[in-house]
Amino acid sequence: MTAFLLSLLIAQAAAAQSAPRTSPSPQSPGEIVAAAPAAAWVEIAADDLLVMDLAPDPDANRRRIVIQLIGEPFARPWVANVRRLAAAHWWDGTSVNRVQDNYVAQWGDATEKKPLPSQLTAATESDYTTGRAALRAGELTPGPRDVYAPATFFYRGWPIGADGQGSGATWPVHCYATVGVGRDVSPSTGTGAELYAVIGHAPRHLDRNIAIVGRVVEGIEHLSSLPRGSVGLGFYERAEQRVPIVQVRLASALPAAERPAFAYLSNRSDSWARYAAARANRQDSFFIRPAGAADICNLPVPVRRVR
Amino acid sequence: MTAFLLSLLIAQAAAAQSAPRTSPSPQSPGEIVAAAPAAAWVEIAADDLLVMDLAPDPDANRRRIVIQLIGEPFARPWVANVRRLAAAHWWDGTSVNRVQDNYVAQWGDATEKKPLPSQLTAATESDYTTGRAALRAGELTPGPRDVYAPATFFYRGWPIGADGQGSGATWPVHCYATVGVGRDVSPSTGTGAELYAVIGHAPRHLDRNIAIVGRVVEGIEHLSSLPRGSVGLGFYERAEQRVPIVQVRLASALPAAERPAFAYLSNRSDSWARYAAARANRQDSFFIRPAGAADICNLPVPVRRVR
Repeated sequence: MTAFLLSLLIAQAAAAQSAPRTSPSPQSPGEIVAAAPAAAWVEIAADDLLVMDLAPDPDANRRRIVIQLIGEPFARPWVANVRRLAAAHWWDGTSVNRVQDNYVAQWGDATEKKPLPSQLTAATESDYTTGRAALRAGELTPGPRDVYAPATFFYRGWPIGADGQGSGATWPVHCYATVGVGRDVSPSTGTGAELYAVIGHAPRHLDRNIAIVGRVVEGIEHLSSLPRGSVGLGFYERAEQRVPIVQVRLASALPAAERPAFAYLSNRSDSWARYAAARANRQDSFFIRPAGAADICNLPVPVRRVR
Repeated sequence: MTAFLLSLLIAQAAAAQSAPRTSPSPQSPGEIVAAAPAAAWVEIAADDLLVMDLAPDPDANRRRIVIQLIGEPFARPWVANVRRLAAAHWWDGTSVNRVQDNYVAQWGDATEKKPLPSQLTAATESDYTTGRAALRAGELTPGPRDVYAPATFFYRGWPIGADGQGSGATWPVHCYATVGVGRDVSPSTGTGAELYAVIGHAPRHLDRNIAIVGRVVEGIEHLSSLPRGSVGLGFYERAEQRVPIVQVRLASALPAAERPAFAYLSNRSDSWARYAAARANRQDSFFIRPAGAADICNLPVPVRRVR
């Protein structure tokens, strides 16, 4: 192992790469996830995966992005719309039009003239949050202390903010790779046709202000490494700078041989508890001083490709 | 104003772009900064600016990155080394070798064979923090509540964590665009020759574990939009994928005509106080529900180009 590869070794480094120690090194977060038993993983339904293919990059490499849609009871009208838009092949031929550094990459119809499918559902301000009574209490796993929300938890693999105890509001939170719904000034204006993915520090001030419909589980680098747009808010100046979207489909609508499958680590598993503790207290030999904490966006729920 | 441009309007949107309101819209963070008086800005010394030129991009566009070095009393040995390395033209001909998504872009000598200047200072574990007594008490501006540090403040434009009250330790914190020192497993191994910039969600677990020597104040997009490396930790697989560094100089060593100048918004100014309050409580017409808080990395200190 060279000094070069050892430099800036972080928690992802395998124990095998660590310097010899007299006592065994505690498992790193990555090792805990790698060792999680099959029963700790929950497969994501093919109807909950959105597969977006950008045009190949300048070197002809495929650019496939897979988005997990958030499940019930969150963001119901928008997620229903996203499924309808995919079924209508609405995004085919649209493009990524905006990439703002440390913020978002956004896609949709740059012409603003493409007719929307007629059966889209209109959302209202109340759809930005969900009453706690709509969640299964037995599936709430406490999350970390938070600067923005009075309480946090994880629910079926999603980081959630909450209004303290009781039957208050709950809402998904914005972290890196979160996918949300662009909208106009009125909170009822976003349909789901205009989507963005977070490519920077968690913009938590958007929580409860913009609908979260999912998160990128594979291929975020195809959005985060795009050239930044030079016009206000990161829009591309010239039409030819936009990145063409070839097609967007639910995984369930793809031929079986092309259908990807993913699973997430259950927040109710012992592996999750140990992973979250290890993320907050890195004991890998690299670390001098474990942080003793991790914010909710520094506890990304592990997702792995199944096939 | 079209629906397309209005979609996902965030705090950066100018008031002129907002929908008409019966009461005047409160100033956005960007408007407060734009209106800050000249006296609120502190010019950064040319000796505190490191100018890094990457080879032009495939379209022959210039790629210049400007880094502000952190001031006394933080990270003394490493910052001194960075100045010596720049004076020795040590980075000229080296490269960006590692780009890991949602984490860091890292540069230095990929061959590991380039001799270092002889007069570099060795750092020790105690250099990762600074005693509070070494700071001027009158220049501490309280920062927000934090998940990681018992207390936070801003000091001469830098976000700082602290061990509660009294004369405890203080340390700069990792946010987007922070520049730090790659090192081996031993905390005394990083010289400053191997540097990285944060290109994702703030990796606060690195605080006090890695030396922070500065932050990118211009051109971070030239690092954050680079292709991600495919080998472990985001290293590039093939030598030709590395991005050549043409030269790195202190601004003070550049010809006067090429010397950039920047200023930061003083944390002791009234404009800063209003900016920080507005970031935590977005009142722009887009927002339904202001967050009521902002984490320390969502309060980036405004830096502007002076010439």
